[in-house]
Amino acid sequence: MQTYPSKLLEQAVNELARLPGIGRKTALRLALHLLRQEAAVSEALGQALIRMRNEVVWCETCHNISDEPRCRICIDPSRDKTKICVVEDIRDVMAIENTRQFQGVYHVLGGIISPVEGIGPGDLTIASLLSRLDDESITEVILALPATIEGDTTSFFLSRKIDSLRIKLTAIARGVSVGDELEYTDEVTLGRSILNRTLYQALPVNGKR
Amino acid sequence: MQTYPSKLLEQAVNELARLPGIGRKTALRLALHLLRQEAAVSEALGQALIRMRNEVVWCETCHNISDEPRCRICIDPSRDKTKICVVEDIRDVMAIENTRQFQGVYHVLGGIISPVEGIGPGDLTIASLLSRLDDESITEVILALPATIEGDTTSFFLSRKIDSLRIKLTAIARGVSVGDELEYTDEVTLGRSILNRTLYQALPVNGKR
Repeated sequence: MQTYPSKLLEQAVNELARLPGIGRKTALRLALHLLRQEAAVSEALGQALIRMRNEVVWCETCHNISDEPRCRICIDPSRDKTKICVVEDIRDVMAIENTRQFQGVYHVLGGIISPVEGIGPGDLTIASLLSRLDDESITEVILALPATIEGDTTSFFLSRKIDSLRIKLTAIARGVSVGDELEYTDEVTLGRSILNRTLYQALPVNGKR
Repeated sequence: MQTYPSKLLEQAVNELARLPGIGRKTALRLALHLLRQEAAVSEALGQALIRMRNEVVWCETCHNISDEPRCRICIDPSRDKTKICVVEDIRDVMAIENTRQFQGVYHVLGGIISPVEGIGPGDLTIASLLSRLDDESITEVILALPATIEGDTTSFFLSRKIDSLRIKLTAIARGVSVGDELEYTDEVTLGRSILNRTLYQALPVNGKR
C-alpha cells in the first residue's frame, strides 16, 4: 500500500482513481500536475464537474442531455420530427450530428440490452420511446445501435415492439468503411456488405444527400 | 468542431481535457461517466481537487508536499537527519519510501535542469538545499535523480556545488534491474554495471539491510 505524504493528496488520488480507465499511478500524476498549476485551474475543473452533474438535465422527450428541460435538437423547428433515430447513448447523438447527414430527431436509450452486465429492457428508455410512437405523425424509426451482439439483440427486441405499429423501421447500413481496402475488411462485414448490396449511386460532389 | 448538447458538459470536457494525457474523447467519456453516477461522486471529486490545491502546503525544510508546515518525514524523530536524499519530485519520495530501505530525510528539487523545457538551476530548490547543508551535522547527500541526460546534468551541477563542502556525496546505483536477463539489458546499463561492479554480497533473506 502506497503511503502518501499528504491526506489531501491521497483523497484527491482516491477520487480521481474512481474514474474509468484511470489507475492510481495516473491519478497521482494528474493530482501532482494540478498542484503545480495555479489554484484557479483546480478550482475551474472542480467547479465544472460539480456544476455539470448538478445542473445538467435529461431532455424529457429524447433523453439526450441538455441545459433545458427539452434539448436543442427537440426544440429546433427545422428538425424533422417524423423520423426518430434510436441510439445507445449521448456520444452517438454527437457522432451522428457531426456527420450533418440526419435532420430528424433522436431517442437515447441510455444503454443496450446486455445480460452479462445485467442491463435489461426495463433499464432503458424503451417505454418512453413507445409512448413517443403513439404520435401518428411519426413515420420512421431508424435503429442506429452498435454492430455488436448486444446491439443486435436490442435492435431485435425493439423491432418486435415496433413491427406492430405500422411505422417504417430501418437500420443504419453495415458494410465496408469508406477508405477501407476489401482485403483488410473482416469476413462478416464483407459478407454482409455483399448480401445487403444497394443500387449503385455515384457519390454527390458535396457529400450531402 | 464537436457540438455538445450542453454547455455545462462542454465546460467539464474542456477542463478535463486540460489535464496531461487526457484528450477530448477521453474527457467526454469521463464526463458522461460522472453524469451516470450519483451527484455525490462528482461532488467528492470536485471538492477533493479544490481542497487539495488550496490546502496542501510544501514542507518548508524538504519541499515535499504536506498537510502541515513541516512534512511527516522531517518531523519524524526516528529519521536520520544527517543523510539527505535529493530527488526530482514528490513521486520519487513516495517510490523510495515504498522500498523501506532509506531512513534519512529528503530534499525535493521540484524538477531537474532541462534547457529544452527552459528549466534552469534557479527554478529548482537548490539554494534551499545548500542552506540546509550549512548545518554541520549533515554527513551525506545522496543523489537519486533520473538516469537521463537531464538527471545527469543536474547531478553534475549539484556535485560542483557540494564538492567544496566536504560532505560525502553519493549517487544511487545504476545497473541491471532485479529480475532482468542480461541479454535484454541495454548496452549502456550493462556496460556501466560492469565498470561499477561491487564486492559480492549474498542477499539477506528478508531483503533488508
